[in-house]
Parts: sequence; structure tokens; C-alpha cells
Amino acid sequence: MKAARFHSQRDLRIEDVPEPDVRPGAVKIAVAWCGICGTDLHEFLEGPIFIPPPGHGHPLTGEEAPVIMGHEFSGTVEQLGEGVTGLSMGDSVVVEPYFVCDDCEPCRAGNYNLCTRMGFIGLAGGGGGLSEKIVVDSRWVHPVGSIPLDEAALIEPLAVAYHAVGRSGLAAGDVAVVGGAGPIGLLTAAVLKGLGITTVVTELSAARKEKAVSSGVADHVLDPSEQDVKAGVLELTNRRGADAAFECAGVNAVLDTMLDVVKPAGVVVNVSIWGRPATVDMQKVVLKEIDLRGTIAYKGDHAAAIQLVQDGKVDLKPFITGRIALEDLIDKGFDTLINHNDTAVKIIVHP
Amino acid sequence: MKAARFHSQRDLRIEDVPEPDVRPGAVKIAVAWCGICGTDLHEFLEGPIFIPPPGHGHPLTGEEAPVIMGHEFSGTVEQLGEGVTGLSMGDSVVVEPYFVCDDCEPCRAGNYNLCTRMGFIGLAGGGGGLSEKIVVDSRWVHPVGSIPLDEAALIEPLAVAYHAVGRSGLAAGDVAVVGGAGPIGLLTAAVLKGLGITTVVTELSAARKEKAVSSGVADHVLDPSEQDVKAGVLELTNRRGADAAFECAGVNAVLDTMLDVVKPAGVVVNVSIWGRPATVDMQKVVLKEIDLRGTIAYKGDHAAAIQLVQDGKVDLKPFITGRIALEDLIDKGFDTLINHNDTAVKIIVHP
Repeated sequence: MKAARFHSQRDLRIEDVPEPDVRPGAVKIAVAWCGICGTDLHEFLEGPIFIPPPGHGHPLTGEEAPVIMGHEFSGTVEQLGEGVTGLSMGDSVVVEPYFVCDDCEPCRAGNYNLCTRMGFIGLAGGGGGLSEKIVVDSRWVHPVGSIPLDEAALIEPLAVAYHAVGRSGLAAGDVAVVGGAGPIGLLTAAVLKGLGITTVVTELSAARKEKAVSSGVADHVLDPSEQDVKAGVLELTNRRGADAAFECAGVNAVLDTMLDVVKPAGVVVNVSIWGRPATVDMQKVVLKEIDLRGTIAYKGDHAAAIQLVQDGKVDLKPFITGRIALEDLIDKGFDTLINHNDTAVKIIVHP
Repeated sequence: MKAARFHSQRDLRIEDVPEPDVRPGAVKIAVAWCGICGTDLHEFLEGPIFIPPPGHGHPLTGEEAPVIMGHEFSGTVEQLGEGVTGLSMGDSVVVEPYFVCDDCEPCRAGNYNLCTRMGFIGLAGGGGGLSEKIVVDSRWVHPVGSIPLDEAALIEPLAVAYHAVGRSGLAAGDVAVVGGAGPIGLLTAAVLKGLGITTVVTELSAARKEKAVSSGVADHVLDPSEQDVKAGVLELTNRRGADAAFECAGVNAVLDTMLDVVKPAGVVVNVSIWGRPATVDMQKVVLKEIDLRGTIAYKGDHAAAIQLVQDGKVDLKPFITGRIALEDLIDKGFDTLINHNDTAVKIIVHP
């Protein structure tokens, strides 16, 4: 079968590899679509980061580069391994792409997203979504019912957003600010909006501002190059400030703004990945008793994220900005995301 | 009566001022002892910071410098204003030294410590504990029963510590790291210990390490100049990490360490006041899903803090390192705290 395998930095090859065999407790999935994630871009440009380099097998999978990439995928159940229940041949499914140890303190506390030896399918081994077939333990497989498989490829990043919103403790009727309208910012706003929370999106890029409005996820868009965002949020909230804010840019000025726009006793959730240390005005955190919370991936969030889409509360279609074949992964996929990152939101790949 | 009044930077005078008259809903207190707070030192050396300068009356009190200082005080009820209930002549009391508006969003949400116009007795006007008598609205007056009045002068900073511990969500049986054994670090450790939480104190100063041990508040003391604190905490917690950590130093290296020593999904409470921005490795916050929480002052914490002392779970005596008369405030009080800040914990003043 065809698969995209990471060998080393900027060396990602479309190769013929053996099709994996189903095993007890697992299912074989015919991949329909696989999204390209920012993490994949970082591995390609600067990696290996999460991918185990040769000679350093992953503690849970034992695998090392070359590995098949891709962790945001949908597909159809093609074969059931021995003992699998709750799934049927032909089911449309998505995958929570984890390897976890089930033994460390976070795993035993139910926080498997914080597993001290955690790995991801599509990075740590176990195959990946950028291939024709994959075999996955059934515990990680989630049926998506009648959600079209192209949209279903976005359930994984939607689950990231759902988990981030869960970290905020917000509820319907609250007001949230989302700093940055890249893919994760847009999906965070989509979840918030789907849960009945008023969304204020801050963004500089004209294309991203337009997408935040046309996709219907932003109730208000504020551009920090055109106005004082703190003053704007205070005006929109009758001087209260936002109940929570989400840093989705990995940019220090955005983090500063998130600390400014939340109300006293408000919550700032940092959703982005940072390449360098941030400068934080601790007095803002102290004098407003802000909770600054990290969030990573998801745990038990897929079912609720799927439900939001099934109920029509989140529409994923506006965020699919490209559909390409596996052979075009580099030139129409990675290159587009690297060179046109403000118009491209999510490019999905059909193997 | 005699009172210590702040006129301007490094100009604090012991003066004769009129004794205040009791008013309806308030009580007159004969001050027994008043502690000197780090905030008082900052006002003296670098102020006015919280004290309203001439021409800029405080929004709630209307007062401006010169004002009487001192907000950590104990005393005896000497006169009851019209309509005061629940207090009696001769009661030993302490004061929660607030002026709040009762009208802003935080006040209406019960977070009066985050009042947008908040002021402190002893800084914003209303008299202060560094005087013979003070009149205070009865809502802020807390009886301390049989707690000796010298120890009672430390209830105010103990309430700060109690509130900080409350922000962490810790419970008996948990493990906490306290970064820094200055007055607030020691009192935070005292509250933790009093609540049945194991305390690990990190500190460089020999005198402060000794105090953390001799006062009984530290179960373990780790010195970062002598050992790897993260490795030490992992060893003490059977590789788990601490359930929460308290930054009580306002030092970036300590904040870094607090992020390192907490377990995944742990809490870091920032108790200290920062004079400059901090550098924060956001990836630690993200990948461990840490909650970094601010804490300021107290709200409704005095009764529980008093109870800890009454029940013998916190012993405040070891933290009183000096007792002076009001006339000696500068040379035996402020100068000692400025020049011997690692041996002096709390100096209390008798007016």
C-alpha cells in the first residue's frame, strides 16, 4: 500500500509498504481522509521532534524513523480483530491516536493525555493516516455515524478545541475571547459558539478575519492593528471583561492581551504550542486572580465533539480549504500551508 | 494620640493626631500590636504606591497622604457604635482591613478582594494599626477569643496564606512545595502543615532554612544551591511530583522550579508580588496541563485562619522576631527588616 513516511528533516517519501495485519482487539481501517496538522509541519521542517530518531525507539511502540505520518484521519472499518465489540464492518470512524502506558500516575488518575510515556499514532509509530490502511486498537476508535468522512477528518483537531474549552469551565451565556484565528483558534471558536458561548475573535490577518466571520464562529472580530482590544472587550461586555480567553497564536502580544481582556477571577487557557519562553506580567495574574491554564490534546472528548457536529452545532465544512491526493502531499499540501498559511485552514489528503 | 503617618517617600513621622470618634456601625479599637508588612516597606522605600498622593484622594475614602500606616493589627474593643451587634466591649479582635465598593462586578460576585476600587486601611486612609486607636466598620472586625494579642497581629498575613492555600485546592494528605521561606512562605507552610498537607520548603538562606525547621512548618527543606530540587521532590513523592507548589519569593528561578516540581495536572499558586515581568516556559504549563493561579489578599478567610490558631494547628509565636515601641518604628523596625531580612520574620509594634 502507499504511505507517506518520515525519514529525516525535509525527507518525507511516498513509498510502498506492506499492508498491516489486523490483530486481536484491533480493527483495520481503510483511510478516507487525513488532515495535515501544524505538528506535522514542524516535524517536516524542524524534526524529528516527536518522531523517534533512528536508534531511539519509542518506549511504548519500540518504533523509530522511518515512520508513517498522519494523526487526523477518518475512514471505514474494513476488518474486525478477535474480541472487538461495539464496531461493525463499514462503520465510518475516527481515531483518538494515542499510545499510553496505563500505568503512570497521570494514566491512573484518568489523565491519559498527560501519560509520561505517551506517543501518537502517525508520529511514534503504529502506522498513520497518510496511508491507505491502518490497524488501531478498538478502544481508540470512535464511530461518527452519518458525518461525511471529509468533515470527520477534522474531528481530531475539534477534540483538541473541545478539550481546551473544557479546561476553561465556561458555560452557555458566557463570553470568551479567542486570540488568533488559525486552524485551532477557528475550531476553538466553533466549539464555544456551538456551546452557546459568545465569541470575540482577535486577529490581524484579513483572510483569517474574513474566515472567522464567514464560517459563522465569531460573534465579533477585533483587529489589534485597528483598535484597542481591551477597550473593545470591555465595551462588548458592559465593562465586565470576558469570562475566559484562549491564547491560540503562540505570540507574546496575544498572551498579554488575553490577560488584559479577562474579568477578575477569569481564566486564560493557553492552547498554542510555544517555541520559546513567554514574558508574563505576573501582577496581572496576581491582582485579578487569573487562572492561567495549559491544555494539551484530549481525553474522553471525542464523543462530545462528534455530537456537536451531528447536532449541527458545529459546521466543519468551512474549514476544509483543500483536498489533495497523497502523491501531492508535499507540493500541494505542506508547501501551501507553509507559504499561504493565512488562507489555507485545513488541507485534507486522500490516500 | 500617637500615630505613624506617611508623608512621602522615606518620610514617615510619629505625630500627635486627634483620636478618631466612633460612628454608627463601627467600633473603636485600642490597638495592641501591629506588624510591619513587606508592602509597608515598599511604600516607605519606593512609595507612594498604594497610598494616594496629595491631590489624588482615594475613590472610596477620599483621603490622601499624609495617612496613618499599618494594616496587620490586633487590639481590644473599647467603644461600640450605634447598631453594632456580635461584638462586646473588651473583646480581643483583629481587622480585615478593607474598603470595598460593594457595587462592581467582582464585589457582586463575592470576590471583594478583587474590588475594582479596593483600598486598604493603613494605606488608603481610615487610620491605621500604627496608632493608639482606630475606628473600623464592624463587618471587618473578627474576634480572636483567647489568642494572645501579640500573636493575633499575625492573623492578617496568616489569612493571606490561608487564601493562597485555598486557591490551590489541596486537601489533607497532599504534598506541597513552598518556594521561599520569607514571612509569607513560612506562613503558607504553616497553613499547609496545619491542614495536614506535607510541606517541602525550598530556600537558599541558612537563617530562613533554620526557621522553617525550628518553627515546625517544614517537613522537608531543599536548598537549590546544594541539590537538584526537582529530583529531590520526585524522590520524596515516589516519582509523582507535588500536588501543588507556591511561589513565595518573586524570583524567576523559583517560579521555574515550581513549574518543574508539580505533577501533571498540578497547580502552581503565585503568592508573591512581582516588580518586573516573569519569563515563563509555557511548554511546561501546556504539556503538564498546569494551572498557574494568582492569589491576592483574602475574602472570608479570617475565621478559618483564626480557628487554625485556636485549635493549636498553627503556632504563630516562632514568627514574631521583634517587639518594638512606636517611637522605634524606623530604626528598630524598618531598618532591621531592610538590613537583616533573612533573620527578621515579623516585627510587631506596640503603640
